[in-house]
Amino acid sequence: MDITSTDLFNIAGWLAVAVFAVSGALAAAEKQLDVLGFVLFGTVTGIGGGTVRDLILGVEVFWVANPIDLKICIASAIITYFAAPHFIARQRWLLWMDAMGLALFSVLGTAKAVSVGVDPVVACTMGMITPSFGSVIRDILLDRQPLLLQPEIYVTAAMVGAVSYLVLNLLALPQLVVLLTAIALAFILRALAIIYDLRLPKFNR
Amino acid sequence: MDITSTDLFNIAGWLAVAVFAVSGALAAAEKQLDVLGFVLFGTVTGIGGGTVRDLILGVEVFWVANPIDLKICIASAIITYFAAPHFIARQRWLLWMDAMGLALFSVLGTAKAVSVGVDPVVACTMGMITPSFGSVIRDILLDRQPLLLQPEIYVTAAMVGAVSYLVLNLLALPQLVVLLTAIALAFILRALAIIYDLRLPKFNR
Amino acid sequence: MDITSTDLFNIAGWLAVAVFAVSGALAAAEKQLDVLGFVLFGTVTGIGGGTVRDLILGVEVFWVANPIDLKICIASAIITYFAAPHFIARQRWLLWMDAMGLALFSVLGTAKAVSVGVDPVVACTMGMITPSFGSVIRDILLDRQPLLLQPEIYVTAAMVGAVSYLVLNLLALPQLVVLLTAIALAFILRALAIIYDLRLPKFNR
Repeated sequence: MDITSTDLFNIAGWLAVAVFAVSGALAAAEKQLDVLGFVLFGTVTGIGGGTVRDLILGVEVFWVANPIDLKICIASAIITYFAAPHFIARQRWLLWMDAMGLALFSVLGTAKAVSVGVDPVVACTMGMITPSFGSVIRDILLDRQPLLLQPEIYVTAAMVGAVSYLVLNLLALPQLVVLLTAIALAFILRALAIIYDLRLPKFNR
Repeated sequence: MDITSTDLFNIAGWLAVAVFAVSGALAAAEKQLDVLGFVLFGTVTGIGGGTVRDLILGVEVFWVANPIDLKICIASAIITYFAAPHFIARQRWLLWMDAMGLALFSVLGTAKAVSVGVDPVVACTMGMITPSFGSVIRDILLDRQPLLLQPEIYVTAAMVGAVSYLVLNLLALPQLVVLLTAIALAFILRALAIIYDLRLPKFNR
Repeated sequence: MDITSTDLFNIAGWLAVAVFAVSGALAAAEKQLDVLGFVLFGTVTGIGGGTVRDLILGVEVFWVANPIDLKICIASAIITYFAAPHFIARQRWLLWMDAMGLALFSVLGTAKAVSVGVDPVVACTMGMITPSFGSVIRDILLDRQPLLLQPEIYVTAAMVGAVSYLVLNLLALPQLVVLLTAIALAFILRALAIIYDLRLPKFNR
């Protein structure tokens, strides 16, 4: 079977939505919500950033065009509801699911913006907005300290994913290579930030 | 005089906007804001959810198309400003106005999505987004514990309104019957939740 | 050199974006974020309100159409990062930058809505939404008490800017005069509110 570049983007997009939905559902678990609360936060976190991206780009919102992403969020949240009691270290899982979503959404958000034909600075901004929005909505609604504002590298990792996609895209490489390399770079940077507590220098009053 | 189904939707929509605007103004009363604060929160709460619904559906925002809803919000908020000191148990009123808005907006949001021709899962999601958004913005801006996250049934009532509209709509019933039944079902469930403190089983860590 | 009325709107718009971006970056300084945090909050504050305005009006989002505003936000935030340690009374600067942005955005938001041909009540609402949104996002994300909700006159100043633009626009005055007068009125009212702690009468329970 041949995987076309459209298939590739679809699969990466579904994975991004699923891992962010799980992170939202795990946040709902911390707050001891009911099963609909899991679905609500899984869905908002999973599709929130992409919704804002599509609205700003002026294209049809992806989950209205095709509700499969909505169904992935609902299924991921319900599975998490039943599976979560058997997880150890749920906060840790939340952090890593969020990191995977961050890497995937930063590159996919940039790619979608490029496909619409915007300026590279706008495309890079979209790569940073797409993962940040879902993550921030989840944390603000649940009254958690936003991951985005914690001192370890977060938005920087999204920027690395966006910029490396833009740069690699200029070379005549196959999309598979461009996509996977950019996602890997963003994920590795965020992973190092989580493990070694990497930070940029703080503002020094 | 004959009431057409368009009249019916318009009247229900104005009522929804008005009761949500009153709930926003009552929340402003708790925070002792000035009259413009009442108007601000009345308006944001009254039109917030429908604005997000229209943006996501890609249709013209309802109050830009026709400012009557905006005027209803402003009037409701100003009336509340002058009437509120004479209300006893304002928190209670807020809760019941919110419940009416929840029932109305869940069914009207679903109906609008259906009229645009989206998938039923998307329509049902719109039925849950339309009331939730205004309610959450009001509570987050005023730094109140969101009604949406309180343990008694809330989003579930919106879902009941959305699903029963979708199901009844499949039968060949008159729109008046479909609309009023779905609104009544959502309202009754939420009312029972408020009175008897009904909840779905919480997630059990 | 002749300054056309388009130039005038562009220059006022860039100034509005820049002063709001500085206010966002100064808020990031209070929270001791890193340089990317400054850029993030500078950008969100600078372009947030205008983004919501354009989405609701159904026109292309201004910084997607032309990324210059995005670049102004990024530059303003980076300059603030390096300049801020030399500022005395940063909170005071934040307040005044915010006041300038409030005056500019209220009038420009109204003008943009008028150019799209909406009802005056809608145009006035847009003049209040455009400055409020960026300001509120900045304060909520950083967990500060929103300026919008503080007791001194804030939204009222935006309303004065919007209404005076609409009224002066009816007279056959040159755009330069209309624009500068409306901005000046909004700014002066907000400035008096800051200096003399002006407030509308609070709701009296």
